[in-house]
Amino acid sequence: MQISVSPLHLQLRTPFRIAHGVSTQRTNVLVETDGGRGEAGLPPYLPTDYAAAKAWLSGVQLPDWTSTEPPPVVSWLGDLPPGPLPARCALDIALHDSWAKRIGQPLHVLMGVDPARAPVSFMTVSIPERIEDLTRESLPDHPRLKLKLGSGDSERDIAIVQRVRDLTDAALCVDANGAWSIPEAVSIIPRLNELNLLFVEQPIADTDPEDWHLLRRLLPQSHTPPLVADESFSRADDAIALAGAADGVNIKLAKCGGIAASRALIHLARTLDLQVVVGCMVESSLAITAAATLAPLADFADLDGAQLLAADPFRGVTFAGGRPVMPAGAGLGVEPA
Amino acid sequence: MQISVSPLHLQLRTPFRIAHGVSTQRTNVLVETDGGRGEAGLPPYLPTDYAAAKAWLSGVQLPDWTSTEPPPVVSWLGDLPPGPLPARCALDIALHDSWAKRIGQPLHVLMGVDPARAPVSFMTVSIPERIEDLTRESLPDHPRLKLKLGSGDSERDIAIVQRVRDLTDAALCVDANGAWSIPEAVSIIPRLNELNLLFVEQPIADTDPEDWHLLRRLLPQSHTPPLVADESFSRADDAIALAGAADGVNIKLAKCGGIAASRALIHLARTLDLQVVVGCMVESSLAITAAATLAPLADFADLDGAQLLAADPFRGVTFAGGRPVMPAGAGLGVEPA
Repeated sequence: MQISVSPLHLQLRTPFRIAHGVSTQRTNVLVETDGGRGEAGLPPYLPTDYAAAKAWLSGVQLPDWTSTEPPPVVSWLGDLPPGPLPARCALDIALHDSWAKRIGQPLHVLMGVDPARAPVSFMTVSIPERIEDLTRESLPDHPRLKLKLGSGDSERDIAIVQRVRDLTDAALCVDANGAWSIPEAVSIIPRLNELNLLFVEQPIADTDPEDWHLLRRLLPQSHTPPLVADESFSRADDAIALAGAADGVNIKLAKCGGIAASRALIHLARTLDLQVVVGCMVESSLAITAAATLAPLADFADLDGAQLLAADPFRGVTFAGGRPVMPAGAGLGVEPA
Repeated sequence: MQISVSPLHLQLRTPFRIAHGVSTQRTNVLVETDGGRGEAGLPPYLPTDYAAAKAWLSGVQLPDWTSTEPPPVVSWLGDLPPGPLPARCALDIALHDSWAKRIGQPLHVLMGVDPARAPVSFMTVSIPERIEDLTRESLPDHPRLKLKLGSGDSERDIAIVQRVRDLTDAALCVDANGAWSIPEAVSIIPRLNELNLLFVEQPIADTDPEDWHLLRRLLPQSHTPPLVADESFSRADDAIALAGAADGVNIKLAKCGGIAASRALIHLARTLDLQVVVGCMVESSLAITAAATLAPLADFADLDGAQLLAADPFRGVTFAGGRPVMPAGAGLGVEPA
């Protein structure tokens, strides 16, 4: 079975500033096979890029499949050699899409999930150049906001949250993308608690899970918002190592290796008493629709990646009041825009 | 949606003797809902019984479902309150069966697995009354045998394996059902290694996972056959606690809570470098067919439960040279015999 791999160049609507740097464009990996399509984001902070993803995918051999039965895609995915997780993810999504199309059902039906249960998604507010840029008019009209912190100045980080809290009653979470040292995190997090946050994501750098346990011991037992691991987490091992220190994990298809792996991680996280955020990268509606199929299994959804784009090359899941509305077609139900 | 619960009385072909005792009959739990059927074994050593399973199932409320879309069974299963795992399992299987029937596909197709990859199943040889009972004629004509040990006399246990090894070249594993003390296990297991076993299952009692780590430290690093946990394992926590001490886990739908939970456990076991046996209880072809849908994801299959019965009330998976052959119909493809 043929696998076609190509770059998906995406332009951001406005420069996207997080602790890792500023992006104005991204190149994702797009996979097409057997009538299915998949995509995965390749953010600059992941240890892979388009060339590495393409190289690995070019070496993958899928069996020829002449049967009229839908192909055993989960078995095929289990055969893949180790490779960059975003590359695996794009192939996993394409295979799931083609499989569900052959069966003639929307993929979310084949996941057995009720789309009406998907949580309201966050809309991301990237780090402002100047705090004054955060005006009520410029804040997205969403019931849930994720504020990117890690401006390099912890007082400024707190001022950003305070400013947004003054401007809106929206439910808020913050994401430091690993910008704080442990002492900074110990100082900032209890102060952030006053501002009524759903959670604080990746306060400290992705170095050693023991750092999370140290942070947890240094934080007060109460007056601490839940802590969610993102950069520190992509595999089951990570979840096991973080249990007891983090309160939740952000499961993004691209970094976790696709739909099959992410489903299993959601189940594991529940077992470990970790809350689940289903998140995304800067990705088109193709990858976002795939992630949205799993959102009904999550506590939080963070699926605004395609809404950050100047032009979305695909049409798939839409959002009503921030809640995902799945397309009706078979497979992912995604079409070129 | 209505749930009907009834006992499934099963008579064993011959008395089934294991370290936990002798059975001549079993009462399993049978669930029917929305055109689907599920079953789970209730062996006497599990901490539940038919009355407890029925009581819990009687309290379960499934949503009414008037849509023509297949129901979101995974979401529904996620809503269930805690309850006896075999009861959850029987309901999980019935819901998966009805869901796959509504979609119009065999359940194994919806699991995405290739049935041709299922391992050859073991056939169980229960503890003989007298070692002389083990004649070539009485040994089942199977390429893989599982010998039940834990006769109460460790020399006799070794003699049973020696006797079978003298009679057949079949691939062998043994299952002590937790009968040995740690010192007995340390003495027996290296001697068993001489007899070329695929693995030794549940050598010691299900008391504390630390016992497994102690056993591992006391055994020689080489000349030890792989150790598989059965009674000590039913949840993700157990797999995590056993990793590094056991080499594999036996995933049985009835004790693990059904298809959805078992799929996730298979993935977790792989992450933890644990081999996977997909096993069963003394169960009819209804429960065995459900387990066989997951066998292609396993390293070993131990699915002879229905072959131990005097009369199998259902017709489903069959075996060719010990390898499962899935029925063709939609859902589980299981029919009353």
